[in-house]
Amino acid sequence: MAFMSLRDKLAAGDSGILLFSLTPPKRHETEQRVKEIAAVTAQRLARLPIDGLILYDIDDESDRVAEERPFPFLPTLDPARYYADHLSAGDLPVVIYRCVGKYHDEELRDWLREADPQRVLSVFVGPSSRGKPVRTDLRAAHATHRQVRPELMLGGVVIGERHARGQDEHLRMLAKQERGCSFFVSQVVFHVNETKNLISDYFYECRARGIAPRPVIFTLSVCGSLKTLDFVQWLGVEVPRWLENSIRHASDPLVESCRQAVSIARDLADFCERLTMPYGFNVESVSIRKVEIDATVELAANVARMLGRGAVAGG
Amino acid sequence: MAFMSLRDKLAAGDSGILLFSLTPPKRHETEQRVKEIAAVTAQRLARLPIDGLILYDIDDESDRVAEERPFPFLPTLDPARYYADHLSAGDLPVVIYRCVGKYHDEELRDWLREADPQRVLSVFVGPSSRGKPVRTDLRAAHATHRQVRPELMLGGVVIGERHARGQDEHLRMLAKQERGCSFFVSQVVFHVNETKNLISDYFYECRARGIAPRPVIFTLSVCGSLKTLDFVQWLGVEVPRWLENSIRHASDPLVESCRQAVSIARDLADFCERLTMPYGFNVESVSIRKVEIDATVELAANVARMLGRGAVAGG
Repeated sequence: MAFMSLRDKLAAGDSGILLFSLTPPKRHETEQRVKEIAAVTAQRLARLPIDGLILYDIDDESDRVAEERPFPFLPTLDPARYYADHLSAGDLPVVIYRCVGKYHDEELRDWLREADPQRVLSVFVGPSSRGKPVRTDLRAAHATHRQVRPELMLGGVVIGERHARGQDEHLRMLAKQERGCSFFVSQVVFHVNETKNLISDYFYECRARGIAPRPVIFTLSVCGSLKTLDFVQWLGVEVPRWLENSIRHASDPLVESCRQAVSIARDLADFCERLTMPYGFNVESVSIRKVEIDATVELAANVARMLGRGAVAGG
Repeated sequence: MAFMSLRDKLAAGDSGILLFSLTPPKRHETEQRVKEIAAVTAQRLARLPIDGLILYDIDDESDRVAEERPFPFLPTLDPARYYADHLSAGDLPVVIYRCVGKYHDEELRDWLREADPQRVLSVFVGPSSRGKPVRTDLRAAHATHRQVRPELMLGGVVIGERHARGQDEHLRMLAKQERGCSFFVSQVVFHVNETKNLISDYFYECRARGIAPRPVIFTLSVCGSLKTLDFVQWLGVEVPRWLENSIRHASDPLVESCRQAVSIARDLADFCERLTMPYGFNVESVSIRKVEIDATVELAANVARMLGRGAVAGG
């Protein structure tokens, strides 16, 4: 997959994009261990017909909810640096997440100036809660992007759960579009109904305004243990009761969760196709357990097949 | 379809039952007009491979919500009488609904004593709101049934929307089961997610108690105009935002709504099959417009095909 294809596909509003998302290794890992992790990751990804990677920028979200975080928060390597040092050899384009509140405006400017817009895209993420002190807010970060590097393709985060609460996430998407976002990536989708509500409202609002809808990349994930399920819910992802039941009662929760993720993908793909809404998928592992990562790679392969994309030859 | 099959299938906890539901004609119609309506209805139904009819007992529900009723309330013929006088020739079994609050205990007793349990089943419906004055409450009606005619098969109503609010509809089902209900019929389903939540909670609660789950008959309906959509929502049925959008924006709302109903049926059938939860469908027309009734018959035929049931030969 050549780099231009991701950028071009997104720019053209094509459907069927497939991304794979990773969290960079923890900062406390040794240089040697980071190299090993990256090598294993690159090997895994080589077999997948993906258009690019997403690298997350992890922020401590413990301000967001009172309950204890099921997995401890540990700082991770800078996603852009991890990509440049360890994952850029294969020419796979990357979407670098930036939790903009972590950075001074000057830091964002420097990074935007240095980033190669032919290989790098970005998604700016706002603070995880309203009261959280930020170095740069989302609106200011968007203004900086427009001013310093508008040619670096920028995406926004969409959250179906937020639409369920406020019924205005589609307007937020349109506001982000006006501020330079040309694609969107969802939070992990377990609640198809809420996601359909959001996409439907967004699509018809675009139509009412005479604007072309921008591609939405739906994030899928496996949830192979009750602890991962707790973590996903802690992150603010709504898991329908029946889906939670089916994972809790499954003889193999990981297999059940993979099956459900493919079924969610199929449902969303059908829905978007019928609506003529451009869409794609991002497959993410929220766990660090090897068995769940393997299942995530398998899920990506299944979604690729569903999208009619073959495996990478000789990968 | 012989009568025993509905009763036997329900008793055995079989899946794949198909019912068709009607509201009896208005009481103000002439005897001649009622005959015509019944003849047309019987002709329509003869083509459908259904296990039985449902005849509703219509109560004025204007106490339930403050908003004005989109269609006026007009009293209808007694469902048992309408069936006996006009629809019993074809040997098709019937599920007679009884809004028990309308009747004195003595009236219910008389009817139960007279009803032929080989041809007639019943569903008792409680009052549409808490404050409503009743002649007989649901619990008392269940006791009367147990005392007078336990062999007449009795069903209960299930409402996914109520489960979404109180998370206890599955416990209500189990309580009704203890009071003599051996099957359930849902309110019209437009919100698959809420229905799955209910069925999942019910299924696993049965398993925890070591009880066999009883069949749930899911009611499907077309919604071919915005006025019908308003009426459905007035009745307390939740229509997901995306589904409402798709009907509002469809070039032919009736065609779109049929397509959605079949898709809901397929989703629920897959879900129940995988869970090993016994299920069936009831196809209902909430409108009196001919074009919507025709579409409802077409929907029943589609659901029959989905269930692997052929058309009635020479019907």
